[in-house]
Amino acid sequence: MGDLKLVFLGTSSAVPTKDRGLSSIAVLRKGEVLLFDAGEGVQRAMMKAGIGFGGRMRVFITHMHGDHCLGLIGMLQTMGLLGREKLLELYGPRGLLEFVESNVKMLHYCPPFPISFKEVREGVVLDAGEYVVKAHPALHSIPSFSYVLEEKERPGVFYPDKAVALGVPRGRLWHELQHGRPVRVGDRVIRPEQVTGPKRPGRKIGISGDTRPTEGLVEFFRGCDVLVFESTYDDSLADRAVENLHSTAREAAEVARESGVGKLVLYHFSPRYRDVGLLVEQAREVFPNVVAAEDLMTLEVPLRS
Amino acid sequence: MGDLKLVFLGTSSAVPTKDRGLSSIAVLRKGEVLLFDAGEGVQRAMMKAGIGFGGRMRVFITHMHGDHCLGLIGMLQTMGLLGREKLLELYGPRGLLEFVESNVKMLHYCPPFPISFKEVREGVVLDAGEYVVKAHPALHSIPSFSYVLEEKERPGVFYPDKAVALGVPRGRLWHELQHGRPVRVGDRVIRPEQVTGPKRPGRKIGISGDTRPTEGLVEFFRGCDVLVFESTYDDSLADRAVENLHSTAREAAEVARESGVGKLVLYHFSPRYRDVGLLVEQAREVFPNVVAAEDLMTLEVPLRS
Repeated sequence: MGDLKLVFLGTSSAVPTKDRGLSSIAVLRKGEVLLFDAGEGVQRAMMKAGIGFGGRMRVFITHMHGDHCLGLIGMLQTMGLLGREKLLELYGPRGLLEFVESNVKMLHYCPPFPISFKEVREGVVLDAGEYVVKAHPALHSIPSFSYVLEEKERPGVFYPDKAVALGVPRGRLWHELQHGRPVRVGDRVIRPEQVTGPKRPGRKIGISGDTRPTEGLVEFFRGCDVLVFESTYDDSLADRAVENLHSTAREAAEVARESGVGKLVLYHFSPRYRDVGLLVEQAREVFPNVVAAEDLMTLEVPLRS
Repeated sequence: MGDLKLVFLGTSSAVPTKDRGLSSIAVLRKGEVLLFDAGEGVQRAMMKAGIGFGGRMRVFITHMHGDHCLGLIGMLQTMGLLGREKLLELYGPRGLLEFVESNVKMLHYCPPFPISFKEVREGVVLDAGEYVVKAHPALHSIPSFSYVLEEKERPGVFYPDKAVALGVPRGRLWHELQHGRPVRVGDRVIRPEQVTGPKRPGRKIGISGDTRPTEGLVEFFRGCDVLVFESTYDDSLADRAVENLHSTAREAAEVARESGVGKLVLYHFSPRYRDVGLLVEQAREVFPNVVAAEDLMTLEVPLRS
């Protein structure tokens, strides 16, 4: 269907490299952009990826470290200069609002479009009708969140011939049945299951931000179609992962296996790795379906069968 | 000699493009980096240009608009992570110190190296021994400065045979003469001019930042070997240049001609120009020796003869 995909805008950790920018992932869904983190350079990466600045957009920040949010300020300025009028929704930890407000003030910039802010706490952050975004505390050196985007279950495919056979007149009653609500025809009640196929499950995408692996996150990411998990170090630096509250590629794969996800995408690589093949190898020993993100890589999330 | 060169790290105005980052120019002189503005993405541009983060470095900010200073914060973080220990000197308008201090606080970052700040006012901003940096008010929508870097005149070439012929013994007295100070030999005074060639003039580089052309700037940039002047618009948008307090390429060339500079470099192009050839043409009608900066372009400033 191509109606849900990820675009990796920046995949380095802490320090960028010539090839990798700082953390940012765009989830594109039915014309909407959901941006998870906005590291320095995100606006240029969006241009290179062909993502516009004027459309429906929500931004979720995992934590208030510069390499995850500094690009937001320049992006706001560019949005204004390019004529954005739509609301921009910001979601993030305490501190994000002050960060935005004080920077636009210090930089003499007044966004000409409305901006909303919601402070993130554990649980449902946003119910957008067709999907929800949930947050769970990550384990990092400052207050941090992981996020999941979960599409809601959709009603099954509607079969007009079955409705006709049951004597349901075309029109409003079909609409009700298509949207999962029973209807009355004469003295009979027709249930949606009688005229539709099985309900269609939604998809689930997980994004770790910076974190150690935790039991809570294993539960939070359970059943993700795609899990994007930070992979700062290889096995030889496992001690450093503990010390700096990051994860190794192997630890990311252990979360993926225990959560029973479909595919694992590694990102947030230490700039010391010119080639991240070693990290993919170490993850694959634990979990087979793994890829390493590259800047501007896109990944379709297929419908569940 | 190759001891003085400019590296253009970002040459777009306000909004970056796929090809042009936001304003930043590095002047490299005898192992030292003088950075004029630090737009978003400057740290990656420095990596691509092979400019390190640990050496002697001074940063001069022209004005507190995001596209001229937002890259500073990420650069400070990267410097710390890469182990910088040396002092970093910041020079800029009122507001720069608050911008840096509040961001490092909001982003939970404590630079592990010393940072000094000097608020820029008109006149000599820095006397570094061999050169000075001066500031002059620019005409823009917020308090803004243009800068020049002026090398001091150096003593002429020392001729040992002349010193010998005049009976000056090798050693301390030669050293004094080489540094332009007269010495006494017996009851005679030997003046430096008797044993050295003509004094060697220093070079002068001018950088406009964002500004309208002004009479004051013409005087300030007089005699520059290289003048880097903003060139946001072409002739057809001259009204917009007035309105937004920027300059056209032609106006930049008029400043170059009236200031009697050696070479004009245009930069800070509106992102509407994919090809800036038109701007170069319009400038060249006024002043012949003009080039358009590109990101990562380098320009040697030769010694004056």
